[in-house]
Amino acid sequence: MAGIRGNAVVGQSGGPTAVINQSLVGVIEAARSSGVIDRLLGARHGVKGILREDFVDLFAEPRDVLEEVARTPSSALGSVRQKPKAEDCYKMFEAMRKHGVRYYFYIGGNDSAETVHIVNQAAKQAKYDLRCFHVPKTVDNDLRVTDHCPGYGSAARFVASAFLGDNLDNRALPGIKIDVVMGRNAGFLTAASALARKWDDDGPHLVYVPERPFFLDRFLADVEEVYRRLGRCVVAVSEGIIDGTDPLKRTVAEIMAEKSARAIEKDTHANIQLSGSGALGDWLASQVKDGLSVEGRLGLGLRVRADTLGYLQRSFPGVVSEVDASEARECGRQAVAMATAKDCDGSVVMIREPGEYRVRYEYTELQNVARETRSMPDSFLAADGNNVTEAFLEYARPLVGPLPPNGRLLGMIR
Amino acid sequence: MAGIRGNAVVGQSGGPTAVINQSLVGVIEAARSSGVIDRLLGARHGVKGILREDFVDLFAEPRDVLEEVARTPSSALGSVRQKPKAEDCYKMFEAMRKHGVRYYFYIGGNDSAETVHIVNQAAKQAKYDLRCFHVPKTVDNDLRVTDHCPGYGSAARFVASAFLGDNLDNRALPGIKIDVVMGRNAGFLTAASALARKWDDDGPHLVYVPERPFFLDRFLADVEEVYRRLGRCVVAVSEGIIDGTDPLKRTVAEIMAEKSARAIEKDTHANIQLSGSGALGDWLASQVKDGLSVEGRLGLGLRVRADTLGYLQRSFPGVVSEVDASEARECGRQAVAMATAKDCDGSVVMIREPGEYRVRYEYTELQNVARETRSMPDSFLAADGNNVTEAFLEYARPLVGPLPPNGRLLGMIR
Repeated sequence: MAGIRGNAVVGQSGGPTAVINQSLVGVIEAARSSGVIDRLLGARHGVKGILREDFVDLFAEPRDVLEEVARTPSSALGSVRQKPKAEDCYKMFEAMRKHGVRYYFYIGGNDSAETVHIVNQAAKQAKYDLRCFHVPKTVDNDLRVTDHCPGYGSAARFVASAFLGDNLDNRALPGIKIDVVMGRNAGFLTAASALARKWDDDGPHLVYVPERPFFLDRFLADVEEVYRRLGRCVVAVSEGIIDGTDPLKRTVAEIMAEKSARAIEKDTHANIQLSGSGALGDWLASQVKDGLSVEGRLGLGLRVRADTLGYLQRSFPGVVSEVDASEARECGRQAVAMATAKDCDGSVVMIREPGEYRVRYEYTELQNVARETRSMPDSFLAADGNNVTEAFLEYARPLVGPLPPNGRLLGMIR
Repeated sequence: MAGIRGNAVVGQSGGPTAVINQSLVGVIEAARSSGVIDRLLGARHGVKGILREDFVDLFAEPRDVLEEVARTPSSALGSVRQKPKAEDCYKMFEAMRKHGVRYYFYIGGNDSAETVHIVNQAAKQAKYDLRCFHVPKTVDNDLRVTDHCPGYGSAARFVASAFLGDNLDNRALPGIKIDVVMGRNAGFLTAASALARKWDDDGPHLVYVPERPFFLDRFLADVEEVYRRLGRCVVAVSEGIIDGTDPLKRTVAEIMAEKSARAIEKDTHANIQLSGSGALGDWLASQVKDGLSVEGRLGLGLRVRADTLGYLQRSFPGVVSEVDASEARECGRQAVAMATAKDCDGSVVMIREPGEYRVRYEYTELQNVARETRSMPDSFLAADGNNVTEAFLEYARPLVGPLPPNGRLLGMIR
């Protein structure tokens, strides 16, 4: 059963990833060979580009340019964070009608899936015949249904590499080091820090994620215990950790900002700005300094440092997981194949097969991935709430690929 | 003329780099084949290890372990920041005498070169026959005499890659982005951000280094000009920028810390702690927000973010310049060759040959590299004080190697 004949539009939305252009090129390839899509329009900056009829003719792009773009991080068409209102949808359908658009592909995370869902519902109401397909992408790995998300493997590879190096840095010049990792609702990316461990005493020694309440006193006690044992401590903390003492279950970052009377930015999907500031890391470091670098705890002169990995995590070039890159490409292809061959609306999910690592691609309905996010399962988190389990490491390893060497002189093994 | 027969000790000191273990392995290789060094002791944590007689037998390390260690970032023997006092030197000579040590190799930056110089002077005074050799290493690239320093090329490659990705991130989701880069006295590493530029409108659009006074009002005017022209702005700022209005010529970071009554840490070489905090970036972002996100300037709702690249710059694995790695190895070998064949004290410098990139290795006296640092020459800095020149880019390109792709759709070129 083949889909309707017509043109298609594709956009990219939300935070960029290192492989989001692989998905774009996957959409282009599959659209070209679909037999039913005559023109593929790239919308500049997502829905904003559709509203403005600001399009790129993607079938005019040469093969070599596309291959270079596929290996270039961040959204090649530009991105946007915008939840369309009903009137936006009708304006978009006008633009689409004018350009003969019958297919709408949108590459993004849960908020972008919500956008596709909204557009899909509005199209049905408006009786505008439009196939709406979401192509998954997020470094947070928090989309539901799918085993994992394109973009996660490469970001996780960056985080694991960063901790591999930073743990060795901390080993060379001992002290307490706190690294803040992206992750608004889910701890998958922060958890990837643990993939860097090879030797018994390798960090991160403590891992805090949004799935477990954060208590400052427990955190300080954890750091003290590790420092007394190893003479150093590396900590991975999600930017989205939740204050366990707060009745509203707000993030530590939000409460901190409130105390310092700093205004907090929100986007149209009601997400609070967490990244792009070193405040949480600096605050945690000052708490460690004030709480532990005193007589009776760890003594004066404690070396405490914090880094916030920041936007590098989602757009760093050259630290890409090969599995992630090829899966991102295939998700783009599959979206087109499903939309045209099955004549349906939805999203692409990856199901992991048993045995040696491989995935198969399946279809799911938009409502299953839109808006709501997925958290790390309990089996991935240690009972103490300050670490990950071997089950998580087994899950994540094939997504990230082999890491750089972490060699140690025989004389330095104790 | 061959050097005296005896044992040798080698240590690593100061901030780690991604290739400092290449130099260590270079020392081991050359010591093994020198014909005059019977045993090579690795001192754990530099001078601290010599004082404690805390040694590793480096000739006992297998070839494959050494090759893996060479490709592992951060100081494999552990590092230290400690300026030895006279009594420390005499204690070290006692330990050395006991272990038959006649050669002292120390891998580090200008502070470590000062340590070697101090030990060398003290040895002469104590009439302890010791060849003292410094092996250059620093991500700051601020050693004198040498064309450039091992460790710089790889850190510069990391910085250039980070800006390549972050510029594309900023292009996808426009706003003002400030990235703080390491560099206490010299702007070489911050300047490397400019290597990421390929297209006309690529960032960083502004580059601020310690060599040029920093004025907040000029900075805001610069950012405003770029934003009005491109609708976005990426800024690279050295952590060590100097406040142009301060009569004491202190760093912006230091003045900020003083205002907020925050204690500033210093090491025994009197260096102020600049890294390991996001405070400078956050402060600059708040200045931009307060100064430009207002009616009459750029209007309300400006998206302003800051990241501090932090310790990742000096220890990130897998983003290594091949030229840097092989030069770091050779500097280790050369130090041993010079110390044994020429029976002298000193440091290794690289002299760049005219024409296609290559270097030759030369000897220099310790006093020429100890303590004092080198700044970027005027020819590397643009007249406006907010950018680098083509001369700098030509200088740095061969040290960093080819960067990852920065592809652009034809339809997105305007």
